[in-house]
Amino acid sequence: MKTALLQHPFCDNLEATRAKTSQMVCKAAKMGAKLVVLQELHQSDYFCQFESTELFDLAENYEDDLLFWSEVAKRERVVLVTSLFEKRAPGLYHNTAVVFEKDGSVAGKYRKMHIPDDPGFYEKFYFTPGDLGFTPVETSVGRLGVLVCWDQWYPEAARIMALKGAQILIYPTAIGWFDEDSEDEKERQRDAWVTIQRSHAIANGLPLVAVNRVGFEKDRSGAMKGIRFWGSSFACGPQGEIVAKASEDREEILLCDIDLNRSEEVRRWWPFLRDRRIDAYEDILKRYVD
Amino acid sequence: MKTALLQHPFCDNLEATRAKTSQMVCKAAKMGAKLVVLQELHQSDYFCQFESTELFDLAENYEDDLLFWSEVAKRERVVLVTSLFEKRAPGLYHNTAVVFEKDGSVAGKYRKMHIPDDPGFYEKFYFTPGDLGFTPVETSVGRLGVLVCWDQWYPEAARIMALKGAQILIYPTAIGWFDEDSEDEKERQRDAWVTIQRSHAIANGLPLVAVNRVGFEKDRSGAMKGIRFWGSSFACGPQGEIVAKASEDREEILLCDIDLNRSEEVRRWWPFLRDRRIDAYEDILKRYVD
Repeated sequence: MKTALLQHPFCDNLEATRAKTSQMVCKAAKMGAKLVVLQELHQSDYFCQFESTELFDLAENYEDDLLFWSEVAKRERVVLVTSLFEKRAPGLYHNTAVVFEKDGSVAGKYRKMHIPDDPGFYEKFYFTPGDLGFTPVETSVGRLGVLVCWDQWYPEAARIMALKGAQILIYPTAIGWFDEDSEDEKERQRDAWVTIQRSHAIANGLPLVAVNRVGFEKDRSGAMKGIRFWGSSFACGPQGEIVAKASEDREEILLCDIDLNRSEEVRRWWPFLRDRRIDAYEDILKRYVD
Repeated sequence: MKTALLQHPFCDNLEATRAKTSQMVCKAAKMGAKLVVLQELHQSDYFCQFESTELFDLAENYEDDLLFWSEVAKRERVVLVTSLFEKRAPGLYHNTAVVFEKDGSVAGKYRKMHIPDDPGFYEKFYFTPGDLGFTPVETSVGRLGVLVCWDQWYPEAARIMALKGAQILIYPTAIGWFDEDSEDEKERQRDAWVTIQRSHAIANGLPLVAVNRVGFEKDRSGAMKGIRFWGSSFACGPQGEIVAKASEDREEILLCDIDLNRSEEVRRWWPFLRDRRIDAYEDILKRYVD
């Protein structure tokens, strides 16, 4: 299945960014992509660098966003994984991946379940933790295990998607470095980010794609300098083997061919699901065992 | 904490192999190791290449094995992680990691929970799945999260060890290639093996060591050719960063310095335990969600 991962910087405003992304989707479709995956919160800058009640305005467009991306999916005849700021009710917002069918209908959605909160990544202020659980989205190209960014650090999320029949794991992401970190520390961070995701592919015998933005985004509050998003979007197969990898600083359409049938073969060789000790996993449901 | 991983081939018989390993423990202690980790089933060849009731004889020595390795730990004043074939009752055997204190006492043990069964690795015939759960062993050098080989493919096992306060994850292992596999496939396998274990370090903010044997061991049944154990024992830190790595084919004492205090720092930066969605993980306890 031809899949395109669209990695790009924020283009200063909603209209320009939407236009840029739409053009990239069009180009990806022309290249033969059947599934197109966008980066986390792809319509805006990564606005969670500081806390401001005014920024909830960004979610006021949610209904319009749905219409817009539905049109794009329909026009280009692709299954499209978007990442939007959902206003669900006044004072209740989610970081939501909406998946559109190639006819423009909503195939399903996933509300980010694990919400980070660290200097420069104040997501607990903006996003209510998801309440839809870990449920794959059924589409014409397969059952998509869509998760979002911080979820990628949690093996539990990937496992449940796999147990519910996901055929691929998909991670729209916004992650980057602080320029003031040492080169060693930067490399450890990016390498850990790639490694943990490849491990979900391995543990579950599933292909996986991760899409991350690029570019430097200033902290407009002035509290910190800003974040340099490290791109490095990639696709791997069910043994965790890298099949495509993007640069760390350039806009890219990363086209890759994902073989959904290879999971059957790999899971026969490595039948991890067969031997899970479900009788002994109860402590997973605890915060800590003390 | 100075830790030594002992990687070596089987030396034809029990006595020679014990002698070799004991010498290596002695050398490691002289090099300053406080914790010494042996490979899986380090006293014998990897006998699970075929099924034979006679091979249960190997477990008849279990009580003697305990005495022998207790003496080694006491003599060298090291905490010693062994991997033994435990006879628990007639017809009831386990693949058991016994941890000895530096005074020779048994600090605790772990019975392999996930048991593989694949061509050349017929462990379900020999080993009853462990019934002690995933519980770290308290020792004078720290709380050791000892798991064994096939367990390394299961994020659940590592997670529970972490939730129970393990300060390091430890995997005695016996894994190798079939020579007839392609070089690409071999590389994918070993890389997956390293990657999944590094991911447990990352997900849990813990250092980790894995010890694997080396050498070619013929399948004495003649059904298959045999297994070439790929060594590659390694240690990584709590960001999954490799701190030491052994060759794929040589006997080695891999000495590394494990900083147990670094977990505190890394978990402050990457507070994954804080954000686990324990309210939404129940499906982990199912075989499959259908």
